[in-house]
Amino acid sequence: MPRHVPTYIEGLDELLSGGIPEGNVVLVTGTPGALKTTFAFSVLHNNAEQGRRGLYISLEQGFRELMSAMASLGMEDLGDDRLLVVDVGRIRVELEEREVNKDWMEIIKRVILDAVETAGSSLIAIDSLDVLYALGTLDHSRRQLFHFFNFLREERLTTLLVSELPTDSKALSKYGEDFLADGVFLLRHYDVGETEVQLRLRCVKMRRTAHESGYYALGFRDGKLYVTRVISRKQGYEMPGARA
Amino acid sequence: MPRHVPTYIEGLDELLSGGIPEGNVVLVTGTPGALKTTFAFSVLHNNAEQGRRGLYISLEQGFRELMSAMASLGMEDLGDDRLLVVDVGRIRVELEEREVNKDWMEIIKRVILDAVETAGSSLIAIDSLDVLYALGTLDHSRRQLFHFFNFLREERLTTLLVSELPTDSKALSKYGEDFLADGVFLLRHYDVGETEVQLRLRCVKMRRTAHESGYYALGFRDGKLYVTRVISRKQGYEMPGARA
Amino acid sequence: MPRHVPTYIEGLDELLSGGIPEGNVVLVTGTPGALKTTFAFSVLHNNAEQGRRGLYISLEQGFRELMSAMASLGMEDLGDDRLLVVDVGRIRVELEEREVNKDWMEIIKRVILDAVETAGSSLIAIDSLDVLYALGTLDHSRRQLFHFFNFLREERLTTLLVSELPTDSKALSKYGEDFLADGVFLLRHYDVGETEVQLRLRCVKMRRTAHESGYYALGFRDGKLYVTRVISRKQGYEMPGARA
Amino acid sequence: MPRHVPTYIEGLDELLSGGIPEGNVVLVTGTPGALKTTFAFSVLHNNAEQGRRGLYISLEQGFRELMSAMASLGMEDLGDDRLLVVDVGRIRVELEEREVNKDWMEIIKRVILDAVETAGSSLIAIDSLDVLYALGTLDHSRRQLFHFFNFLREERLTTLLVSELPTDSKALSKYGEDFLADGVFLLRHYDVGETEVQLRLRCVKMRRTAHESGYYALGFRDGKLYVTRVISRKQGYEMPGARA
Amino acid sequence: MPRHVPTYIEGLDELLSGGIPEGNVVLVTGTPGALKTTFAFSVLHNNAEQGRRGLYISLEQGFRELMSAMASLGMEDLGDDRLLVVDVGRIRVELEEREVNKDWMEIIKRVILDAVETAGSSLIAIDSLDVLYALGTLDHSRRQLFHFFNFLREERLTTLLVSELPTDSKALSKYGEDFLADGVFLLRHYDVGETEVQLRLRCVKMRRTAHESGYYALGFRDGKLYVTRVISRKQGYEMPGARA
Amino acid sequence: MPRHVPTYIEGLDELLSGGIPEGNVVLVTGTPGALKTTFAFSVLHNNAEQGRRGLYISLEQGFRELMSAMASLGMEDLGDDRLLVVDVGRIRVELEEREVNKDWMEIIKRVILDAVETAGSSLIAIDSLDVLYALGTLDHSRRQLFHFFNFLREERLTTLLVSELPTDSKALSKYGEDFLADGVFLLRHYDVGETEVQLRLRCVKMRRTAHESGYYALGFRDGKLYVTRVISRKQGYEMPGARA
Repeated sequence: MPRHVPTYIEGLDELLSGGIPEGNVVLVTGTPGALKTTFAFSVLHNNAEQGRRGLYISLEQGFRELMSAMASLGMEDLGDDRLLVVDVGRIRVELEEREVNKDWMEIIKRVILDAVETAGSSLIAIDSLDVLYALGTLDHSRRQLFHFFNFLREERLTTLLVSELPTDSKALSKYGEDFLADGVFLLRHYDVGETEVQLRLRCVKMRRTAHESGYYALGFRDGKLYVTRVISRKQGYEMPGARA
Repeated sequence: MPRHVPTYIEGLDELLSGGIPEGNVVLVTGTPGALKTTFAFSVLHNNAEQGRRGLYISLEQGFRELMSAMASLGMEDLGDDRLLVVDVGRIRVELEEREVNKDWMEIIKRVILDAVETAGSSLIAIDSLDVLYALGTLDHSRRQLFHFFNFLREERLTTLLVSELPTDSKALSKYGEDFLADGVFLLRHYDVGETEVQLRLRCVKMRRTAHESGYYALGFRDGKLYVTRVISRKQGYEMPGARA
Repeated sequence: MPRHVPTYIEGLDELLSGGIPEGNVVLVTGTPGALKTTFAFSVLHNNAEQGRRGLYISLEQGFRELMSAMASLGMEDLGDDRLLVVDVGRIRVELEEREVNKDWMEIIKRVILDAVETAGSSLIAIDSLDVLYALGTLDHSRRQLFHFFNFLREERLTTLLVSELPTDSKALSKYGEDFLADGVFLLRHYDVGETEVQLRLRCVKMRRTAHESGYYALGFRDGKLYVTRVISRKQGYEMPGARA
Repeated sequence: MPRHVPTYIEGLDELLSGGIPEGNVVLVTGTPGALKTTFAFSVLHNNAEQGRRGLYISLEQGFRELMSAMASLGMEDLGDDRLLVVDVGRIRVELEEREVNKDWMEIIKRVILDAVETAGSSLIAIDSLDVLYALGTLDHSRRQLFHFFNFLREERLTTLLVSELPTDSKALSKYGEDFLADGVFLLRHYDVGETEVQLRLRCVKMRRTAHESGYYALGFRDGKLYVTRVISRKQGYEMPGARA
Repeated sequence: MPRHVPTYIEGLDELLSGGIPEGNVVLVTGTPGALKTTFAFSVLHNNAEQGRRGLYISLEQGFRELMSAMASLGMEDLGDDRLLVVDVGRIRVELEEREVNKDWMEIIKRVILDAVETAGSSLIAIDSLDVLYALGTLDHSRRQLFHFFNFLREERLTTLLVSELPTDSKALSKYGEDFLADGVFLLRHYDVGETEVQLRLRCVKMRRTAHESGYYALGFRDGKLYVTRVISRKQGYEMPGARA
Repeated sequence: MPRHVPTYIEGLDELLSGGIPEGNVVLVTGTPGALKTTFAFSVLHNNAEQGRRGLYISLEQGFRELMSAMASLGMEDLGDDRLLVVDVGRIRVELEEREVNKDWMEIIKRVILDAVETAGSSLIAIDSLDVLYALGTLDHSRRQLFHFFNFLREERLTTLLVSELPTDSKALSKYGEDFLADGVFLLRHYDVGETEVQLRLRCVKMRRTAHESGYYALGFRDGKLYVTRVISRKQGYEMPGARA
């Protein structure tokens, strides 16, 4: 049995028989505003507080922007190397000229290996996969991603890959990343009744562990994310003859 | 905690815990006739009246056309530099020959920087993103937009980007701008019953602040926009057995 | 407040707070058989009878075909220059050789300017935008249309642009004309019950005036179009539990 | 008021205020098996019996195949030139070598003009438009079709153009022929209940005449097509609460 | 009246007024697992037993595979030339080197003509059309298919063309073969209730004969296909207020 | 009658009249997280325990990752050559330099032939077809796949081909593999009610055997997969007036 990396998100680990199996590459996919960044950052922040060291590679937002957003949600900078956070600017500075000709995929790998060696990071988040596509780092043939996932697995890193899902998408990914990944968390808003919207989380797939696969409500309370059974507001109005 | 820029639109700021977080780049997206321009102009006009200086870059409509339309809604020209409004013609005059060879993206940046320096503008609206695409200023690779958003954030400007949403679109944007943006307001007509149509606003996403994410009615009364809970006209007719 | 050009169509002007704001470029879009031509021609014919001079540029149908169809509906040729009607053949004759090398967009502009100068036309209809696309006059980049709309606005002409909407279209236009236009009338058949079909009109958008945005029935009676509230034939059969 | 060409199909002419306006170019569009050929042939056969001379250009089926199919439905070869029927083979023979280099569009025009001159044909059917596309005779730019329709109108011919509609199509045509045409008959199977299928006809559009635009049942009885109100078999089972 | 080729499938011939009109080219189209091959083979096997000689061209499956599958369903090899069955390998052997340069369409025609001449085959099945596309034998312009259908009709062969329909397809064919064909049998699974699936047959089109066009159940019993009215299992649960 | 290869999955073989007909090439297709790998591995593991030797070609996951995942589900490495498992790395080692220039399709064939000869494998799984596409081994013309399937059939191997189905797909395959294959198992999650998700299996197609074609629940209990009738949780709540 593989060991599990707990998410320390209330209500989630018991749905996963304890957490994410160590070494899994997991997609965190969802629509705009569905708290993907908050979710991934929480998992790393929670783990860092418990001593499991992490690396957050923020390609969407700058360091300051991200840290101020996370602090406003109650996740303060820990102030040490338990949770390394790098953005595009920091990556450039860190690597200096010696590696200036490498492509971004190589640079990301180098950043990861450095964090593993110097800070002992074993839990990684990359936010987002889509920036890698946008930077031309990844083509869409799935071949490169296949090799990158293998690199992560060989390094025995547990990885969260944040990924965008257009609001109208019924698929879980644009290029089949959901098949290559070992796990998929889907975060998505659902219309409830005519005017209300509810945020839900579903663990669609998680290799090497038993897990629930239904829809759960994802909420934020007292500076913490939590997962809970869906209490449908419609439920109170449901009558015989209504169709769920 | 970031400071907030209130919209001063009745009923909206309390849904955003006070307004738009300062420095956010926010998409105002919606279908034709959904008052996108009125919404963005209102936010700037209201703020200018309260002393926060703004710049409205009107690429769709000419200066006179826009100002007469806004005046007919009760938003008179303030007559000073609290709210600068520029159209394509004014931009050309302003820049003279010295910058004639720059591309439109560079010109827009220059107009913004000038307004920041000379008038102290800190709240910007660009109406619309689609004209930037149409003018060939933006390609669709998301790379340029990524850099433009970073320019706006580095200048610490709060920005409203008006963007079109075809009536049949279920996505929030054509090229994923909703993922890059810090916030998204969706303005859209909804069929209510067989013949009535209702205008609604939804804050889909707003980084760095708690916000409501359901649907609200957007209306216009006494020369002012307002946001309110949806009073469904269908509601009165709903019976057990009806399907929501 | 802008002045309004009444449509003189029964029931319509009160939905528009008096008519179409002077100088607006308005799309008349709809499915085949939805009376788009009849609608646009009526507005011009009604106005010509009241003294506002118009120009109808018929690119779909020939002059004789159009005039006989309109006469059969009760709109006789007024016999003077209050309502100029030109078709492709007349345009060719009128322009003679001197302008034979101009492209169609230039020719249309010339025809319009001539009518403005010689007959004092201030209300224009072009039937249809789609022929301009078919003739290769317009590409689909939206750039040319953007400039053409600006030409019309600078000439302070109130314009109706007839445009096709495939029966299966959920969008209002193929190339985003509905965003560039100042107003949009949608004319469309709707299935009512299993076998009946009803023609409806909706003013989706109208800049610079308050307007209703719901669906109204569009009918023809005693040689005149009229707009009225939808009297749903289904209504009589609606019961608690039915879904509208 | 234009004169009308009756279809002599029971129940149809009263829906058209007497028939098809003379000189109209009318699309007969429908799904496979929806009796398009039978419908178009009936109109010509009925008219030939009444003395209005016709020309049926059969590009889908060979002469013998078509005539045997029509005879099996009760429409015998009239044996004279009241109804000329030509297929691809006959066209080739008729034209001999002198015109061998013309393209098919020119050949079709020549066949039509010959029939007009020698047999006095004034009612034409072309079955089908799709073969013209398949033969490379028509491109899809709509330009050629626009000119072909004008040719037909200038010759003052009443024309039926048979056209295919894929079973999954919600549009009425593939390339917008429904906009160019003066009229559109839609013939289509509709699922009624779980296992029954009903053939229906709808006159979507008919320029220069008042017409019904709802759905009617199209049937075949005693060797004749007929049109009648839809008697929904579901109707007997409809209850309050059911949705039509 | 054309003569009919009975299918000898229980319950089917009466829906077709006796069978398939001689000389018709008929599409047998359906989703995977919908017994298309079994259906087409049955028609030929049944006819061979009754003395009408047939040729089955199996391009999907090899000879042995097909014959063992059919035998397992009760249709034994007849052991003589009443039913010729050829696969790709047999075709290659039969034609030897002399025709090695012909393309597959020519080869298929040669195989058919040989069977007509030497064994008197008049009923042909080709399984499947899709392999002809896959082999590059047919392009998608519909032109070649048009000529191939004419070849079959000129030889007065009654032909079944097996054709694939993706499970998500609402059209009856990918390239409009359903319009060119004289008849179309649709074989398809339908979900009945939440977990049951029912196989149904519909004769969508059949030129030159009166035919039913509704949905019928297709089953297999005692080594024979049969067609019967749909007995909906849902029917027992249908209540007023349910929607069919 | 062909012999059957039992799956030894509880509840499944009786739906197949005993199992998978020997020599069939069967698609195991499904959405992410639908236990496709577990299903295919189970069939091979169960058979190996019963003495039928197998070869599992794992292209998605590495050997160790796969074996640990399967062990965590109760399927331990058998420790001998009854079930050979190869991944990309092992394939490379095994083949050495002598075959380094072959393309992947040739390599896969070689691996299969080696296993047949040295270990007597007769049951093969390839996980997944999509990696073969991603590696450029297979193009999408269906021609290569057609030949590969023939290779497998000629070797009389019973084969399971794991294949991905995007969550939004209504088709069973991307390139029509479901038509070429002799059988198709569909594994898919279905929403049940508002928040629950149920895993279901359907045997869409299985040549040369009678089989059930409805939907069954697929579950995992005591280290074993099982198939059972769907017990709809909705069922308890179904009332007259509800729509199934």
